[in-house]
This record gives sequence, C-alpha cells and structure tokens, in this order.
Amino acid sequence: MKSYNLAIIGAGPGGYVAAIRAAKEGLSVALVSGDDLGGTCLNRGCIPSKTMLKHAEVIEDIKGAKTYGITVNDFSFSIKDMVGRKTKVVKTLKNGIKGLMKQNKIEVFSGIGSVQEDKTVIIASNGGTETIQADNVMLANGSKPLVPPLPGIDDIGYYTSDTIFDIEEVPAHMVIMGGGVIGLEIACIFNSLDTKVEIVEMADRILPTEDPDASDYLKRELSKKGIGIQTGAKITGFSKNGQKTTVDVETSDGNKNTIETDSVLVAVGRQPNLTGIDNLGVTFDGKFVKVDQNLQTSAAGIYAIGDLIGGYQFAHAASDEGIRAVTHIAGKAGHGSQPESTIPRCVYTFPEVASVGMTEAQVKEKGYRVKTKKVDIAANGKAIAAGETSGFMKLISEEKYGEVLGVVMVGAHVTEMISQATAYMHLEGTAEELDSMVFPHPTVSEALGEAGSVWLEKGIHYS
Amino acid sequence: MKSYNLAIIGAGPGGYVAAIRAAKEGLSVALVSGDDLGGTCLNRGCIPSKTMLKHAEVIEDIKGAKTYGITVNDFSFSIKDMVGRKTKVVKTLKNGIKGLMKQNKIEVFSGIGSVQEDKTVIIASNGGTETIQADNVMLANGSKPLVPPLPGIDDIGYYTSDTIFDIEEVPAHMVIMGGGVIGLEIACIFNSLDTKVEIVEMADRILPTEDPDASDYLKRELSKKGIGIQTGAKITGFSKNGQKTTVDVETSDGNKNTIETDSVLVAVGRQPNLTGIDNLGVTFDGKFVKVDQNLQTSAAGIYAIGDLIGGYQFAHAASDEGIRAVTHIAGKAGHGSQPESTIPRCVYTFPEVASVGMTEAQVKEKGYRVKTKKVDIAANGKAIAAGETSGFMKLISEEKYGEVLGVVMVGAHVTEMISQATAYMHLEGTAEELDSMVFPHPTVSEALGEAGSVWLEKGIHYS
Repeated sequence: MKSYNLAIIGAGPGGYVAAIRAAKEGLSVALVSGDDLGGTCLNRGCIPSKTMLKHAEVIEDIKGAKTYGITVNDFSFSIKDMVGRKTKVVKTLKNGIKGLMKQNKIEVFSGIGSVQEDKTVIIASNGGTETIQADNVMLANGSKPLVPPLPGIDDIGYYTSDTIFDIEEVPAHMVIMGGGVIGLEIACIFNSLDTKVEIVEMADRILPTEDPDASDYLKRELSKKGIGIQTGAKITGFSKNGQKTTVDVETSDGNKNTIETDSVLVAVGRQPNLTGIDNLGVTFDGKFVKVDQNLQTSAAGIYAIGDLIGGYQFAHAASDEGIRAVTHIAGKAGHGSQPESTIPRCVYTFPEVASVGMTEAQVKEKGYRVKTKKVDIAANGKAIAAGETSGFMKLISEEKYGEVLGVVMVGAHVTEMISQATAYMHLEGTAEELDSMVFPHPTVSEALGEAGSVWLEKGIHYS
Repeated sequence: MKSYNLAIIGAGPGGYVAAIRAAKEGLSVALVSGDDLGGTCLNRGCIPSKTMLKHAEVIEDIKGAKTYGITVNDFSFSIKDMVGRKTKVVKTLKNGIKGLMKQNKIEVFSGIGSVQEDKTVIIASNGGTETIQADNVMLANGSKPLVPPLPGIDDIGYYTSDTIFDIEEVPAHMVIMGGGVIGLEIACIFNSLDTKVEIVEMADRILPTEDPDASDYLKRELSKKGIGIQTGAKITGFSKNGQKTTVDVETSDGNKNTIETDSVLVAVGRQPNLTGIDNLGVTFDGKFVKVDQNLQTSAAGIYAIGDLIGGYQFAHAASDEGIRAVTHIAGKAGHGSQPESTIPRCVYTFPEVASVGMTEAQVKEKGYRVKTKKVDIAANGKAIAAGETSGFMKLISEEKYGEVLGVVMVGAHVTEMISQATAYMHLEGTAEELDSMVFPHPTVSEALGEAGSVWLEKGIHYS
C-alpha cells in the first residue's frame, strides 16, 4: 500500500494549494481529486464568472462608448464564442495546475476518496479501487449548490452556478433566486447580454452579510441598469407553462405575486460536499465539519478546510486555511491563525463591492468604540476622468487610536484596491498613517487616504 | 493692506491642497493663482491625459472585442467630442476646487504674485496691482514644459503637453521627442487613435529613471502595438517641408537618420516656473529652489514645494510637500518628513507601470543587501480571465529581515494596486507578512502576495 505524509481530498483552491505548500515543506503528498483540478473555483465558480464578467464589461464599454466620443454603429455577440473562450481560459489554468503537480512531485489520484479513521483513503474510480495510507489527511471536499426542494422545481430545468456558464442560448428573461454574491454577479452578466433579469431575495436586502450601505448602493445601481430586485420575498414554487415557467413569490408582508420567465437560476447558497466522508466519525458543527484553531477535526491527524468547515466560502479563505493546516502538520512556525476578520470579501458586480474586516454592526456588537467616515467616489478626479463615478470608500477605525478595523469599498475595480486596506489591517495601521501615506494622483485608490484624512477631520476634498 | 497667516503662490495640487489643510489648521490663507485653479495637473497634465487615455482604452476594448466573442462591425470616433469631454471633466473638477476654496474661506487672488523678502506679495492682474502681507509664504509656482532651442524648432508649430490635449485633428503621423512618462502616455493615446507614432529618446532606454525591467517590458509592449521607438538617439533639428516636417535624428553611435512627420510633440521634461520669484533672493540648487527638510527656503518663513524644488515632479508629491510645510508652519506634530522613497510613481501607459521605493540599482548603491523576486502576471488567473496578461510584479526586500524596500509593477490597472505596496513600505512590512496576508482570489493584486511567498521560497504558482 502506497503511503504518504499527507493525503488531501479535493483539488480545489484549498486542496491543490495546500498540496504545493506541503511539498515545498518536504512532505510527500497524495492529492485525491473527485472533480477536475481546480475544483469549483476554476471550473464552475470564480474563474468562469470573472471571464464572463469581462465579456460583459466590454459590452458595457461598447454600449457606453458615445460618452467617450466613440460611435459604435453596429455590434453583436456570440454566447457560443463567449462560453468557448471561458472553456479555453479554464483549460489553460487547469493545465497550469497539472504542471505544478508534476513539478512539485505531488501524486494525483482521480476518483472519489473515502477517508477512514485510520487515515487510509479508499479511492474509487472507473478503473476500480485503490487504497493509500497517510500520516495526515486533509479534507478539502468543498461544496455544491444548495437546491431547496420547492414544489415544481424538478419540472422546470433550472440552472445553478454548476451549469449556467455552459449556457447555449441567451434567455430573454431570467429569474434569479437569491441576491447574494453568485446571484448578483450572474445578474450583471446577463443584464449586459440584454436578458431581462429579476432577482428574488428572501432577506430584507441584497448582499445581506455585507455592510448595509454597500447593499443599498448596489441595489440602486443595479436597478438603474434595469435589473429587477425584490427583497423580503421568497419563492414558494414553480410551474411549467408551455415554454415558460411561472414563479410564485410571497413577500414578507404576505402578498403574493408571480413572474413569467424563460429561465431560472437557483443561487441560494452552497452546502458542504460530504461524499466519501459521510461515514467518517468526525464531529460536525451544524452542517459543517468542526475544526480547532489548527484546522484539525475531532480525529487527530485529520484536518478540514474550505467550504467544508463554513466561515467565508471563498477560494482565498480555503487556500489560506490549507496553508495554515500544512504549517501545523509540518510543525513549522509562522503563518499562524488568521483572524477571519482580515479575509477580504469581493463581489465583481458593476460596480464592484470589496470589503475587509468587521462591518460597522459587527464592530459595535463586539463592543469597540468606533468612528466611521465615508468618502464618495463621485468627486474623485480619476473616477470623473474615467466616467466611473459610482461608489464610495468607508473607513471604520477604533475611536481612540484610529486602528483600522474595517473598510468597505464600492466602485469600479475596487476588488483590486481592497488589498491596500487588508495591508493596513494585517500590519495594524491607523487612520493617521492612512492620512500621512502618499497615494498616487490621480487614482481612485487615493480615496482611502482621503478617508483617513477625513477621519482626522483634516480632509482635503471632503469634510 | 490685507494680511494673512499664509500666502500661497500657485493653485496647482501643491498650492490648493496646502491652502485647504492650512485653513483646517486655523490659518488665514491667501491663494494667488496666475493660472487656472488646479494648475498644470488639472488643466494640462494628469487629468486631461487620464481622460484621453480612458477614451483610448475604450477604443482598445472595441478593437479587441472579437477576442471576447463580440463583433463590432463599424465604429468611429470624434476628436472634437473627446476633447470636448476632456474640457468638461476639467471644468467639473475646477468648479469643485472653487467650491472648496469658498467653503474653507480661502481668499483667491487671480494674478501673477511677485514675492518680496519681507513677505509682501504684489499681485498683478488685468485689474491693476494689489499688495498683501503674510506671516509665511509658500512658493508653489510649478513648472512648464522645457523646449530645447533646436535649429528650426520655431518654424514647425510643435505641440507640448500644454497644447496637445486641445488638438483639433488627429495627425496621421507624430514624432514624440522624449520617452519619459509624458511622451509615453501621449504615444499610447495617439496610437489608439491610429496615428503612426515614433518616439525618439536620448537615453539608452525609455523611462530611464525607472527599473530597467519595466523599461524593457514596456518597450516591447509598445513596439508590438506599432509604436516606433528609437533610444540612444537625439533630435538635432527640424525643417519644414511643405505640409510635412523633417526631423533630423542622430544615434549615439553617430548614425544619422530623418523622419518625415505631420506633427511633433516635445516632451523632454519640465522646468521650474520662476515668474514672480526671479528677483527673490532665495538660494537655488541648480535650476531648483533649495529647501530644508521642512520645505523652508533660505529665507525664513518662505517655503517652497512641488516642481519648483525638483525631486519627483508628481502632483501627489507636491500635495504631500504642501501639507508637510503647513504642518511645520502651524507648529503641529505628525505628517513629518516623508522619505522620497515612499512616493509612488505611476505611468498610465498600456500596460501601466507603477512603482514605489528604491529600484534595484538604487538599493545596491545605498549598500543594502537585497533579494529580489519577480512574478509574471501571465500565469495569474484573473489576468487570464480578463485577457490582460502583460506585466509582472517585482519585490525588492532587504536580504535578512525581508523588509520591503521597493516594488515595481507592470500591467493593466497597476496604478490602482501600487498603494498596497506603499502601505507595506509606510508601515514597514516584510516579505513574510506579504506571504501570510490573504489576498482576494481571483485578483491581479494577489501577485504581490505570491511574490512574497516566492521570496521565502514557498511560492505556490511560481518558484
């Protein structure tokens, strides 16, 4: 029986990244992949969505070209070509991971890995089964879309994020069930492709886990683009009506309405993928595998990371957890426990939303005395020059010493700017240091420096 | 005679920002503006160029749309509309500054301010002269394009950055004298507008003050776009040839060539604007006004900032200097001397170049032992998804403790990402902290985190 220092179940951004780091730490590593390399993130998540969002962004540029002195007389797009490019992007990156596995001498097993408490893993594939032994096991099984068992749902041929990025025709109308990150990003894509999109969200606002100011701002912007949004409304059932689907909606005040549509996307969240570990006797916390601060489960030497353990269901959170678990397994110092509060959160809508740290509500809940300042991007020179004036940057700092506790950004490209805020949190910087740091002009990112100045009541362009 | 705590000469990003900060510190302020509010940056520099670059970016998106599954059958652009939009953007921002002056009770005088050693300022305008008295004076006179007295130059009707953004027709051919920031940005604009652009740079590389890797990379990218670049070549004279201009060029090895062109842009640097201070007895350092660490000239109570004192000729450097001078005048602590090495440097070409801190050469010159790692953007997931794979991020850290001493970025939108690197320098972060910080995935900015990991020899996607 082949034996390894570490067997990792799942080759998503949690598993494959952990595998490489473990190999660099000198461990022998087996990576058991029941899915394509790269997992959900690469094959059905982050990368396909960002690829399609780029296509949508170019369409938006073309539609808005007149503003910039450019006349486009005639344009068209091909969903087949767009999906084709998406598939190519995914393939390129998958080949990259394949190369990295080889280069780092990581043994990749394709198949479903069933983990036993003695840290053997039985790998079942078309070619039969094979059993391997490991000193440590890391469960990085990921998650899959949650599909609620609503009346009629099985009759209507709905999409989830697993299938939408392989769509063959652009529907004229789409109902999106769920106004979280996934639903909103896909809403932006299809809105640009001229689909009439309607979002139905059960909570009283879209992006319910984000800062309320961000939710409100984004709702206003998406509505301006013609995206329909019902909040405080739940879908109670579906029925097929010839080529159309009728969606039954009930609002929180008990009113009922129906929507006729051509297509339905279910985007109400994700659930842990327990295939191969459902008989393993580890302790759960609700539907998630329970881990300690070193990412170890109740079974010694068996670790779990990523969407399986709940918390932020982000690729970069899974990667970080994987690296932290490896650091513990290898008995190395450094890369210690990452407070969840410094994990950035990105939504690639038009405009984008990016945040890090605690929201104002969380900060107050924890008993911090805070002072919050918000700077609108509308008056920023670079934003005005680029014609991208939507959004704001909000700084949440501890009242006395000004330590940065949270930052919320809404605007074009802010997902590429949030790391300047994360740096402040990671290095424990203050509002005063934001004020004294020199930001390049003209940039949108300098709005965060200005927020620091405003926080000190020394704002230049804002008060 | 009206009297003020502070009289500022020049209303560019040095002067007007200092004026607001001084007002917030409780000083009475007079702002003497011989130019439009906002100075060169707003009227003839940063803002016009970024506005026109945005137009160029949209054209590039349209030209490249096929890659994204989008077919544009026919498009055109109007230089009149583009310049019109530029003028509107400038006006919007100028009105913003006007409002800020009013709101902060800063008295604005329009006219040329002549400064006397007794800190009176004689303001000459069409309406006559007026003299004011100040406790302190700040010289923020800025700079103007340097035009070398070459044979024939006065006969050919050349452009400078003062005039190019009001151009009325797109020339078929343009020779740009100077391959620095200004020349290169304008080259990108006109390349997108289908002008055949040729750059002639005297130094042996474009962007001669930047990291050589950045120069090389950018030269290759611009050449691919069809921009002609001669380095190690100087223009020795011009002659008019009917509607055309003949440009005489001599290479460093003594070879001579000529270029026939429709238009010439002179972009070989800027010189201090000494109008109104040429008779003031302050000490100079070469052509620049000499200042001490508090930005004070040889005359007590007379400060100088911005392009007048040399160093980095950036809007944000001038603003920072203005604020630092005000802090000294107001006798306040904080916002102390900013080491020049944390002033970010941005070039908004396609791709962009952004850097902060010392270049590898400077670091070695200063005797640091450094270790440098470079991560190519070509393998970055977000970059591949967006089809923007040009560029790299380079980390220069002190060898022993890993303190970040410099970062160089080349790529799309990196001017909005450099502040994460500046944060590391400002807060004295290390390569190890870059490695342990969580960057959002997928972003291009995460390449800097990866550079930190590679520096520690723990890179995931790179070695």
